[in-house]
Amino acid sequence: MPSTSTRQYQLQPKHAPTISPSSTMARSRAALAALAIAVLVSACAADPEPVQDFCVAAAKTAGADGQATFPGFPCKPESTVVSDDFFFAGLSQSGAAAANDSPFGSAVTAGNVEAFPGLNTLGVSINRVDLAPGGVNPLHSHPRSAELVHVVAGEMLVGFISTAGKFYSKMVGEGESFVIPRGMVHFQYNAARNGTARAVTVFNSQLPGVVLAAPSLFGAEPEVPDAVLAKSFQVDGEIIKLLKSKFQN
Amino acid sequence: MPSTSTRQYQLQPKHAPTISPSSTMARSRAALAALAIAVLVSACAADPEPVQDFCVAAAKTAGADGQATFPGFPCKPESTVVSDDFFFAGLSQSGAAAANDSPFGSAVTAGNVEAFPGLNTLGVSINRVDLAPGGVNPLHSHPRSAELVHVVAGEMLVGFISTAGKFYSKMVGEGESFVIPRGMVHFQYNAARNGTARAVTVFNSQLPGVVLAAPSLFGAEPEVPDAVLAKSFQVDGEIIKLLKSKFQN
Amino acid sequence: MPSTSTRQYQLQPKHAPTISPSSTMARSRAALAALAIAVLVSACAADPEPVQDFCVAAAKTAGADGQATFPGFPCKPESTVVSDDFFFAGLSQSGAAAANDSPFGSAVTAGNVEAFPGLNTLGVSINRVDLAPGGVNPLHSHPRSAELVHVVAGEMLVGFISTAGKFYSKMVGEGESFVIPRGMVHFQYNAARNGTARAVTVFNSQLPGVVLAAPSLFGAEPEVPDAVLAKSFQVDGEIIKLLKSKFQN
Amino acid sequence: MPSTSTRQYQLQPKHAPTISPSSTMARSRAALAALAIAVLVSACAADPEPVQDFCVAAAKTAGADGQATFPGFPCKPESTVVSDDFFFAGLSQSGAAAANDSPFGSAVTAGNVEAFPGLNTLGVSINRVDLAPGGVNPLHSHPRSAELVHVVAGEMLVGFISTAGKFYSKMVGEGESFVIPRGMVHFQYNAARNGTARAVTVFNSQLPGVVLAAPSLFGAEPEVPDAVLAKSFQVDGEIIKLLKSKFQN
Amino acid sequence: MPSTSTRQYQLQPKHAPTISPSSTMARSRAALAALAIAVLVSACAADPEPVQDFCVAAAKTAGADGQATFPGFPCKPESTVVSDDFFFAGLSQSGAAAANDSPFGSAVTAGNVEAFPGLNTLGVSINRVDLAPGGVNPLHSHPRSAELVHVVAGEMLVGFISTAGKFYSKMVGEGESFVIPRGMVHFQYNAARNGTARAVTVFNSQLPGVVLAAPSLFGAEPEVPDAVLAKSFQVDGEIIKLLKSKFQN
Amino acid sequence: MPSTSTRQYQLQPKHAPTISPSSTMARSRAALAALAIAVLVSACAADPEPVQDFCVAAAKTAGADGQATFPGFPCKPESTVVSDDFFFAGLSQSGAAAANDSPFGSAVTAGNVEAFPGLNTLGVSINRVDLAPGGVNPLHSHPRSAELVHVVAGEMLVGFISTAGKFYSKMVGEGESFVIPRGMVHFQYNAARNGTARAVTVFNSQLPGVVLAAPSLFGAEPEVPDAVLAKSFQVDGEIIKLLKSKFQN
Repeated sequence: MPSTSTRQYQLQPKHAPTISPSSTMARSRAALAALAIAVLVSACAADPEPVQDFCVAAAKTAGADGQATFPGFPCKPESTVVSDDFFFAGLSQSGAAAANDSPFGSAVTAGNVEAFPGLNTLGVSINRVDLAPGGVNPLHSHPRSAELVHVVAGEMLVGFISTAGKFYSKMVGEGESFVIPRGMVHFQYNAARNGTARAVTVFNSQLPGVVLAAPSLFGAEPEVPDAVLAKSFQVDGEIIKLLKSKFQN
Repeated sequence: MPSTSTRQYQLQPKHAPTISPSSTMARSRAALAALAIAVLVSACAADPEPVQDFCVAAAKTAGADGQATFPGFPCKPESTVVSDDFFFAGLSQSGAAAANDSPFGSAVTAGNVEAFPGLNTLGVSINRVDLAPGGVNPLHSHPRSAELVHVVAGEMLVGFISTAGKFYSKMVGEGESFVIPRGMVHFQYNAARNGTARAVTVFNSQLPGVVLAAPSLFGAEPEVPDAVLAKSFQVDGEIIKLLKSKFQN
Repeated sequence: MPSTSTRQYQLQPKHAPTISPSSTMARSRAALAALAIAVLVSACAADPEPVQDFCVAAAKTAGADGQATFPGFPCKPESTVVSDDFFFAGLSQSGAAAANDSPFGSAVTAGNVEAFPGLNTLGVSINRVDLAPGGVNPLHSHPRSAELVHVVAGEMLVGFISTAGKFYSKMVGEGESFVIPRGMVHFQYNAARNGTARAVTVFNSQLPGVVLAAPSLFGAEPEVPDAVLAKSFQVDGEIIKLLKSKFQN
Repeated sequence: MPSTSTRQYQLQPKHAPTISPSSTMARSRAALAALAIAVLVSACAADPEPVQDFCVAAAKTAGADGQATFPGFPCKPESTVVSDDFFFAGLSQSGAAAANDSPFGSAVTAGNVEAFPGLNTLGVSINRVDLAPGGVNPLHSHPRSAELVHVVAGEMLVGFISTAGKFYSKMVGEGESFVIPRGMVHFQYNAARNGTARAVTVFNSQLPGVVLAAPSLFGAEPEVPDAVLAKSFQVDGEIIKLLKSKFQN
Repeated sequence: MPSTSTRQYQLQPKHAPTISPSSTMARSRAALAALAIAVLVSACAADPEPVQDFCVAAAKTAGADGQATFPGFPCKPESTVVSDDFFFAGLSQSGAAAANDSPFGSAVTAGNVEAFPGLNTLGVSINRVDLAPGGVNPLHSHPRSAELVHVVAGEMLVGFISTAGKFYSKMVGEGESFVIPRGMVHFQYNAARNGTARAVTVFNSQLPGVVLAAPSLFGAEPEVPDAVLAKSFQVDGEIIKLLKSKFQN
Repeated sequence: MPSTSTRQYQLQPKHAPTISPSSTMARSRAALAALAIAVLVSACAADPEPVQDFCVAAAKTAGADGQATFPGFPCKPESTVVSDDFFFAGLSQSGAAAANDSPFGSAVTAGNVEAFPGLNTLGVSINRVDLAPGGVNPLHSHPRSAELVHVVAGEMLVGFISTAGKFYSKMVGEGESFVIPRGMVHFQYNAARNGTARAVTVFNSQLPGVVLAAPSLFGAEPEVPDAVLAKSFQVDGEIIKLLKSKFQN
């Protein structure tokens, strides 16, 4: 049962406005860890056709010792595959506390191939999104997957921006769904003052990949040059420095 | 908002063992309707890559007047696309009563491209499965999609048979998930004496297609010859006739 | 020349009606062997695009010693590839005797990538089907391939059931062909009292995979619960036990 | 039953060495017709994933009246599809006479989507190749399909050239097979002084496309400039003119 | 020759810092036009396999009159296709003046399927990028295509951010190339004080699609709520309003 | 920086008409080397979907020691990937001298995955073509890629032959482009008496593969039988021997 490898990440920028200074460093480390996980989450993004019934992911040991690897995950020997390999309990634990604790007010528990090895080659995955009151699963895109948001509790504003620059959004309640085309920037937002909201988000990819808009642009390592950011956002360098201060260490 | 086109189907064979004779004819018609819907559900099975941000499905009018059609669905003009096209409320209504009323003890509410036109070309869909106590979503396969079962309420036994003839299964509780490889025969079963169970099942296809094992073999029109069925199942013609009586009109 | 690795399988359920009890155990073992081969035949089912001119399959040694493997087959070093790697003689031997000896009255000689390593990555394969008088290549489906049946000798009824529950069939004579869409349940049946029939069946997959309808449902290991089968087929437990007795050991 | 639309083409260059001058004009017209058919045969070359169980090809009327068309073939309305749509008798007639009558000594009867509309979207097709003694199915390639040659009668030399410039070939007898990777130049040749040979060639495409090496280079319309051909083949203009004389009108 | 349909777009935010107030309205309209073109550019993003040799794009008239359309472009009748359909002269005109005139200091001339109809179904396209001194082709991503930047004149800094948050960049001179993986945010920047720079950028898609980072987030219509943007960028509403003022009308 | 592994190949048949006899042997060896490189260039031809952001190609050591390998290239460990892996300087050096020195009057410098490892899994590549006055990049096809020719200096005739036998061509000048569908036979030809010409050719494949028409047919090893070539080209054996003499050793 792969539940011990479940990954729960809290998206945390460096200096969150509502957080006391003393906790900044700890949070920075948490943010780094979150980013590291986001990296793992987004390392793969496309899903070729399966060539076998299944190929339960085995540990990628070759990569660990600095050797060259092939893309994707190797298969556990078929003789050792058991029913538990197709089972995943990682989304049953609440992410509400983690959401509260995050500057974004959100927590995403990933049920992708890294947490749930049985998904390998099957082209589908599922995340759990918990939103604190006022929390947002911040603007991001998935390079290789559409996303279907299905609200399980509470309600949330779900929206995306098309490449034509049109913003489509809807308040989505319990048992209702909203779909986001592949590659489009989108978010989920709990506008309520009280009351959490929860959704499962499902993907047609075993590892949809995540490009978090703000951390990607302003928190990259090494830094994207200020001149490039300033010209792209049509603002001066002070604004760029302010934005960078939120996402860098 | 496409919720009026939501399809809820109850899988009903002709002579369900626990059903009084007087209700047979009404049930036969219901079974036919159910089958007709299953046909619609399974008319498309594969998902090519999208070639645009989205292509909200418009009515397939060409087919209605007997003209030749191209595979798949045409797109609503982009200028008429609104946020509601990406929204679907059809899974918010309970299928518990329909499950109780079905000889299988189950009801599947489809959230595929026929019910939710915004899914067109996006390669993802979602169903709701309600199981009465003792109910089963009967043995079936999806020709073009893996399936991830995520239990929302209660618990159910979920299992599939690999092409190697191995049976993998697990009791899956609230918030837990089980994944079924593409094309494998599988089921969901509520073993509880009391208490319903509910899941969402998600697919990496906008219309995964359904091959219901028993109705397909024993209820086809015209009939599959008895000799072929008898030899394939290694039983005599009486057993075949009995099985056919459950699924034909 | 890979002809020594040609696989010829006889599909044999446990208790075939016309078979004397004393031969049951031997047949059971044969059935097991047949099933084992069917498993190999169906281990892969999808065909990604080739990335080289060819990649003649080498032995999958990594899997043999319990190590993790990547999906598919490794390539023989190109410098060792010879003309014989693209040649296959395995279908030139008659399967008529094997068909006579089988409770189904049929023998399938596989010319897929496991028998014919040169097919690796080329996305095509070919089987030979021999049918004794009254024999049937029992109801089955191929998860990843359409099938074109081309009759070489005699005539046979070929049919499939669409996901819409319609049964399409035709008596197909020498030099004639019939095509079966991907994933649809189908069969070939020699209705003649005397005279064998023979076909080649061709696939757009190097390993199309086989789901044998009856053995899959009633012969899985471990067993599919009786309650699930009984509810799915709408019959009582006695019928299920009878059906299971034909395909289990 | 689409057998009336079966296409049988004889590949005929303009001035075949063994042909009397008086028959040249008639042959030129035949060659033109053959080329026209080769064009139809090769109009489509790739096969996307099917999106429905099947889509029996209807006439492409839109193209006939000069309107823009979508790639591929439209579908016959599903309600009008019958068993005969999946059946094809076109390969049951001998091509031996046509092979004798052809300067190449070969006749190819096509069983692709244009002759056999039921193949549309199914990704598989089959041809019959008849070879007179000394006849050759001349050097050609299929841009979008591997080819598996299965000899039904007699024997023939089958060979292909890899992109590495290696020539792989084998004498293939009755019941034996040889496979040719996608896009590689290949041929079948009946080296026997007496006795015809016959094969079925199967493809993982509904319309594999044909690039006939010599007619393509030396018979194109308008002509490929002599200077380009002379430099590419490293011969002088006289040789190019000789070669062109064989394939142009 | 389709050069009259060549699209040259200058990416222009509303209030560019170096632009006099009196020209704002004119620029706003120019920005709108630019955005409209960007929309066209990004309307398609994925490329299915071709099913014919070619399918030269015809006008999409069905869409013009409010009818439903199929995804992609229809084909010009093959009989009307001429050599000029495969030819494109649109990149031969300098974009230097347009780059100078743009607040970003850049001009992109598109050679995608909308400008060059012969590319339809061929899965490849090419743009010309002109950069004024200090100009940037602002941060953006292509949802469906990798990009290979080949510098033709001058030199430019080219960089992208991986989903792991790593920034890869290089100063690329004349005749040199840099490649950007699919979906990654990237830019080209001419750091020189004097001297323009020019590149061709090539894509494995006929219409790669463009998500311009800043205009997409801050210039969408209707507006993305300030609360969502503020929480995502971890700044207060004033900063968001400032950023929106640059890209909205 | 992989520029040391840049491959520049001069296409050289054995006896080029304008070359003095004494230089034949040296040229033969050069031709062999050229062929060897062409082989490498064409070893891979298709591009599956990427499954990670990138996978910079590492050396294929497994193949070197005679072991079985998987198709494609392994990935350098991600921690060792640097900006230079995405950079390629190999096309900045002129191929004019090599073109002059070649019997075809052309030199192609490859920027495919073998020369530029960062392209691995990204599905795009770029070549540089230098043509001496009167030089031709000889008739050839790419099994797995369309080609967009973009002229950088001078002008050249670019043409291809469709599978329908139609020849499409155009004189293409500086800054202009011409596109060639996948798998079609094509060439570039510098008709000028003085003045070189130069183009970049871009592909939607990391290794498009090359089938050189004349060397493939007349220079294969072992030789394609004269009888097969004579019958296919409808000429006598003397002409075949002459043609073979140009491309064999």
